[in-house]
Amino acid sequence: MPTPWSNRYAFRTHSIKSSAIRELLKITQRPEVISFAGGLPAGETFPIPEFQEACNKVLKDLGSSALQYGATEGYPPLREMIARHLDRYGITASPENVMITSGSQQALDLIAKLLINRGDRILVEAPTYLGALQAFNVFGANYVDVPMDEDGIRTDLLEEALRSGPKFMYILPNFQNPSGVTMSLQRRKELVALSDKYGVPIIEDDPYGQLRYSGEHLPSLAVLDRVNHNGDSYYKLGNVIYLCTFSKTLAPGLRLGWIVAPPDVISKLVQLKQGADLHTSTFNQIVAYEVARGGFLDEHVKKIRALYGERRQVMLNALEEMFPEGVTWTHPQGGLFLWVTLPEGMNCQRLFEAAIKENVAFVPGDCFYAMPNEIGLRQFRLNFSYGNPEEIHEGIRRLSIAIKNQMVDLGLAKPMAMAAAAPIK
Amino acid sequence: MPTPWSNRYAFRTHSIKSSAIRELLKITQRPEVISFAGGLPAGETFPIPEFQEACNKVLKDLGSSALQYGATEGYPPLREMIARHLDRYGITASPENVMITSGSQQALDLIAKLLINRGDRILVEAPTYLGALQAFNVFGANYVDVPMDEDGIRTDLLEEALRSGPKFMYILPNFQNPSGVTMSLQRRKELVALSDKYGVPIIEDDPYGQLRYSGEHLPSLAVLDRVNHNGDSYYKLGNVIYLCTFSKTLAPGLRLGWIVAPPDVISKLVQLKQGADLHTSTFNQIVAYEVARGGFLDEHVKKIRALYGERRQVMLNALEEMFPEGVTWTHPQGGLFLWVTLPEGMNCQRLFEAAIKENVAFVPGDCFYAMPNEIGLRQFRLNFSYGNPEEIHEGIRRLSIAIKNQMVDLGLAKPMAMAAAAPIK
Repeated sequence: MPTPWSNRYAFRTHSIKSSAIRELLKITQRPEVISFAGGLPAGETFPIPEFQEACNKVLKDLGSSALQYGATEGYPPLREMIARHLDRYGITASPENVMITSGSQQALDLIAKLLINRGDRILVEAPTYLGALQAFNVFGANYVDVPMDEDGIRTDLLEEALRSGPKFMYILPNFQNPSGVTMSLQRRKELVALSDKYGVPIIEDDPYGQLRYSGEHLPSLAVLDRVNHNGDSYYKLGNVIYLCTFSKTLAPGLRLGWIVAPPDVISKLVQLKQGADLHTSTFNQIVAYEVARGGFLDEHVKKIRALYGERRQVMLNALEEMFPEGVTWTHPQGGLFLWVTLPEGMNCQRLFEAAIKENVAFVPGDCFYAMPNEIGLRQFRLNFSYGNPEEIHEGIRRLSIAIKNQMVDLGLAKPMAMAAAAPIK
Repeated sequence: MPTPWSNRYAFRTHSIKSSAIRELLKITQRPEVISFAGGLPAGETFPIPEFQEACNKVLKDLGSSALQYGATEGYPPLREMIARHLDRYGITASPENVMITSGSQQALDLIAKLLINRGDRILVEAPTYLGALQAFNVFGANYVDVPMDEDGIRTDLLEEALRSGPKFMYILPNFQNPSGVTMSLQRRKELVALSDKYGVPIIEDDPYGQLRYSGEHLPSLAVLDRVNHNGDSYYKLGNVIYLCTFSKTLAPGLRLGWIVAPPDVISKLVQLKQGADLHTSTFNQIVAYEVARGGFLDEHVKKIRALYGERRQVMLNALEEMFPEGVTWTHPQGGLFLWVTLPEGMNCQRLFEAAIKENVAFVPGDCFYAMPNEIGLRQFRLNFSYGNPEEIHEGIRRLSIAIKNQMVDLGLAKPMAMAAAAPIK
C-alpha cells in the first residue's frame, strides 16, 4: 500500500535490511516456542521491590525535577557514580568523561553520526554485534572484518586490515555478542599496540563485562591503552571510547547506557544527543541511581552471575549430552550467548525453519557478519540467560532433533544412529 | 585539550553550532535570575500522586515485562490509546499508524535520517523551532524559509519557495515555537492545497495543540489533507506526518512522543529507531499509559490550561503596562511562548547581556531563523508557562528596564520619559 512518501522518495534507508532478529522474534514469541533467539536478561533478576522503593522516594523527594527536562549529559550524581565505579577497574574517569545515553544502542548511533561519513570503512570482528552494523549502516559505513578464534580477534591478521585505513575499530572484548568469546590478555595488548601504531582508534563495547562466571577479570582496552602511553591519563591521550550499560545488570526497560570518552569527544556527542532526543529520561536516571547506589548493584550483580553461570552450565551440559558429533560450540566465561558451528554442508537458515517446527528458536549466524561469509551460513547464536534450566534442557533437546534430522537428510548421519558424523569431503 | 580523536578527525558535526539555548541555560540557572528562556512546563502541574500510584501498580502487576526489552514500535495499549485520542480530532489513525518515540525530538531525528540527504532543501517557517534545525543540520539540510505573520506562514509567498523543490515542509500550526502564532484556517487550507499541488509533503509538529487558552480549535493539517482527497482515508493518500508528545501535558522527564504516519513510513522509521535506541523505555510507556488512561489526562489538561492561560494573561498585562512604545509582541491563543519585536536599531544579543545584569533572561531571536535574517537580531522569545505570576511580573519589570536603557543609549527614548519612541529614520 504505497503512499506519496514511498512513491516520491528513495528512502535514505535503502541500505537497511529489516533486522533478522526482529523478524524472528515475531515467530519466536509464540508461547509454545522455547526461544534462545533474544538477548534478554532473565526477568526474575529485576530488583522490583528496590525499584518500587526508589520510585516512591524519587517522586516524593524530587518529583518535580525528576519529571522535568534535564541536562543532555545526564544526571550528575549518576555520572559521578559511574566514574567512581570505572575507577575500580582502572579506568580513571571523571564525571566530565561520562555521558548518559538512551541505552548502549544510542551510543553506537551517536558515534556513527559523529564519525562515519558515507563510504568510510569500519573495522569489525567477524562475527560482530548486529545492532552495531544497523547503527553504522545508516550512515553509509563500509566494512573490513577480521576473523576471531577462541582468543578473540586474530591480531595476526589485523595489520593488513588496518592498512586499508579504517576510521575506527569496533571491538567487544568480553563474552562477545554473538560468539561468547573473550579476548585474551595477549591479544588485547597487541590490539592496543596496533591501534597506536596505525592511529586507528577503538570503540570498546562492554555490555557484559561484569557478568563473568569463570576465569579472571582482564583489563579493558581503555586501561591497556593508558598504560601504553607511559601512564599518561587515558583522557589526555586516550585512543579508546568505552561503552557500557545498565541493561544487563539492572534492567533493559530503563534504556540507560553510557559513553566514556575524552572531553572533546563528549562535548561533540552532547551536541548530537541534543538533536537526537534532548536527553535520556530524567526519571529513569534518578531511579536507577537510587537503586544502584550504596553498594546494592554490586550485591545484585553477584546474584545475576550465580543464576546465569548455572544456566550457562546447564546449556553446555545439554549440548555435550545431546548435540551430535561434528557440531562444535564456544565455552563462554560470561555474558549471555554461545555460538554453535555446524559441520560443512549444513545450513542454519534451513535449520531455523526445522527448529521452529520443533518449537525452538535461535538466531542464524549469517546476519552477524558485516561481509558475506560462508561460515556464517552454518553457525548460530544461542542465548542462555533468559530461559530457566528446564526450558534450556528441553530446548536443546528439540534443537538436537532438528540438527540430527538435517544431518540425516544430508547423509551426514544415519537415522537413529548418530555416532560418526563424518565431515563432507 | 585535544585528543587523538579531535586531532585525527574533522568531526561530522562541523555544521552544528552549540545550541544558543543550551549555553544560555547555564547562565540562566543561577537562582537570582528569572528566566523566560527555557521551554519548561511548570513543575507544579506534574501529577505526582498519580505517578506514584502508577509506578507501584505497574511494578507490582507487570514488573518483569515493564523492566524488560520491548517492541520498537512502542507499548501496544499506549499506541491504541493515542490512536483513539487522535480520532477525536478527526485524525483517523489505527495503532499501526503510531510509533512511540523518545520525545518529539527523536521523531525529528528519525525523520531527518529517513528523508534528508546532504544538500536537500527543507522548507521551514521563519522563525522556526531551533531543535528541528539542530536535528536536520546533522544530515546536511539546506533551507528555504517563508516568513510568518499573525496568521501563520505567508501562503502568498509559499509557491515561489515550493518551486525551489524542497524535500518536505516543516510546520508548527498551533501556538508556534518560538512565535506563539497560530495558523488561520484559511492558511491551513491553502498550505495543504499547495502541498498537494507541488507534491511536497508536510511534517506537522503539534506539541502544544491541546494547550489552547482562547479561541476555537482548528483542524490539523493531517485532517485537512484527508478532506482534500475526497474523503479517502488519510493513511492511503496522506501527505502529512503528524508529531505529538506527552512532554507538555504529562511530563517531559519521561521522554515520550509519537509519530503518526502511513504504514510504509512507520515501517521504515521502526527500522531506523531500532538502530537508534532499540525502543523507548518500556517502563515509562506503561507508567504513562496507566496515568493517562480512563480520562485522567483530559481532566489534567484542563488544569494545565487554566494555569498557563492565567500566566499568559499576567505576562500580556505586564508587557502592556511596562514595555515602552515601539516594542511589539504576539498574543498567543495557547502554548508556552510569545515573541517580542524591538524597534529598528535595537539588538537582542546586547539586550540579552544587559538583561542578565538585571537578573532576567530570554532567548535571542536570531537563533530561530534557518537563514540569516536581520529582523531576528531585534526579536526574542519569552516563555510564560514556567514562572509563577509574581515572577512573571517582576521579570517583565526587570526586562523593561534593560530595554528602556538600550533605547536611551540609542537615542530612541529619553531618560525617564518613555513616551514617544520614534522609529529610526
